[in-house]
Amino acid sequence: MSLPLGFTDHPSELLRVGAGFTLAQQPTNAAPGFTGGKAEGVATLSQRAPVLARLQEQLFAESRFGGKKSALLILQAMDTAGKGGIVGRLVGAVDPQGVKLTTFKAPTEQEAAHDFLWRVRPAAPGAGMLGVFDRSHYEDVLIHRVHGWADGTELERRYRAINDFEAEMATAGTTVVKVMLNVGPDEQLQRLSARLHDPTKYWKYSPTDLDERAHWPAYMAAYQKVFEKTSTEIAPWYVVPADKKWYARIAVQEILIKALGGLNLQWPAGDFDLEVERARLKDA
Amino acid sequence: MSLPLGFTDHPSELLRVGAGFTLAQQPTNAAPGFTGGKAEGVATLSQRAPVLARLQEQLFAESRFGGKKSALLILQAMDTAGKGGIVGRLVGAVDPQGVKLTTFKAPTEQEAAHDFLWRVRPAAPGAGMLGVFDRSHYEDVLIHRVHGWADGTELERRYRAINDFEAEMATAGTTVVKVMLNVGPDEQLQRLSARLHDPTKYWKYSPTDLDERAHWPAYMAAYQKVFEKTSTEIAPWYVVPADKKWYARIAVQEILIKALGGLNLQWPAGDFDLEVERARLKDA
Repeated sequence: MSLPLGFTDHPSELLRVGAGFTLAQQPTNAAPGFTGGKAEGVATLSQRAPVLARLQEQLFAESRFGGKKSALLILQAMDTAGKGGIVGRLVGAVDPQGVKLTTFKAPTEQEAAHDFLWRVRPAAPGAGMLGVFDRSHYEDVLIHRVHGWADGTELERRYRAINDFEAEMATAGTTVVKVMLNVGPDEQLQRLSARLHDPTKYWKYSPTDLDERAHWPAYMAAYQKVFEKTSTEIAPWYVVPADKKWYARIAVQEILIKALGGLNLQWPAGDFDLEVERARLKDA
Repeated sequence: MSLPLGFTDHPSELLRVGAGFTLAQQPTNAAPGFTGGKAEGVATLSQRAPVLARLQEQLFAESRFGGKKSALLILQAMDTAGKGGIVGRLVGAVDPQGVKLTTFKAPTEQEAAHDFLWRVRPAAPGAGMLGVFDRSHYEDVLIHRVHGWADGTELERRYRAINDFEAEMATAGTTVVKVMLNVGPDEQLQRLSARLHDPTKYWKYSPTDLDERAHWPAYMAAYQKVFEKTSTEIAPWYVVPADKKWYARIAVQEILIKALGGLNLQWPAGDFDLEVERARLKDA
């Protein structure tokens, strides 16, 4: 496997959650496998953007001629970890026509009246689409575990339901990539502070951010459990150090490129007779 | 009014459809009001992108604190005119979280069983969102007129229904901007030919493109009628020369910037006590 520019090892290998994974041992401020600093990272992001854009266009193009493949990027993280930046930089660099972004907030009254997957299933990407979940059904085993809104039996049921759901998507042709942006508590504190000292960022701050921050160890335990229960062969988790935003972006970019690259996507031949159409064009 | 970089007149003024507008007299290969060439246009697109991104972020931010404003860009054009490029370059340059893109294809069986606005109403942007329609309800008075799928009485009913619908959106706080990308038939022929001579573009070609091209004068007549019937004070049409893709992009960018700039958007103050939260943060 050829390595992307600036990497000594592929982030898909380095950051994938495997057996024996321990979240507490993962660095948040590192740049695993990348030889450069911020300047090189920013350059890599730009240079690799067209590769991702081309793969996404091929995925979309195939679907116009019967292709059934799709992809889904699930993003989870503590507040301020940079989900928005990932969405803006990576997803913003591909054709918006082929992206289906869903931001999951606290459930509405109607959503809360249904099973937790009720609102998630319709958000699954159709053929040719790159779906992106900004938060997801994992909130139902994270914040729900931290606050005791679901008991142990219910949480076990949800882990199984999630694995079943993701297996269904995989069977339907969807490549599922799950990313936890792993920001450290010190870095989070700095970012929250920045939001309270810049009038253009006040709107991003909510007092509940600090309430949730107080549950940090419980969240980390909940994530650890999530990884143990739901990092599967067909829908693996990647834990991406996120204190350096530039690194998180190139790491997720490469993870996506590798996932799409593995689909053996091709430019469709078209379903028309090329010579006939070229001749028609001459008379048009 | 200050003029954007490189412009001697504002595209919002030059390209707006007013009384006595005649589509047949509009150039397709011009760059009205812009002093530079392609290189300057491409540079302008990059330089002005952050301005549009900031306005869109403010629109979104206001909505988090009760703001009701939104915006809707409606794109119509003959095939190959560059709608996709506008969506990719302009919309891709703002935060995807705040964009609601809807691509209207031929109606499904279910959609066709309802009034033509049935599928359009749910696509209207909610508070804080920049909605984008890639094609729209105007297909129901364009292709339907060209092919005689709706008679004169029905077309008149639809023009009125469209004006009522857009007035409703305006009343609800949506700024509606309607853009027709005006590509010339010669340029279209070249672009179709390019699609038939590049294997990475075959998938974008459909034999029906040439079928529709044969109806060019009828389409132009249908557009002329659309402009006469539906270019209103609250939802004006802009006809943007589109033979030069770079020009169409900066013109639409400036039209959007001016539309959003007119909303007097502000960064929200937040709904918390700044000093209290800063103090909490120190102990967090």
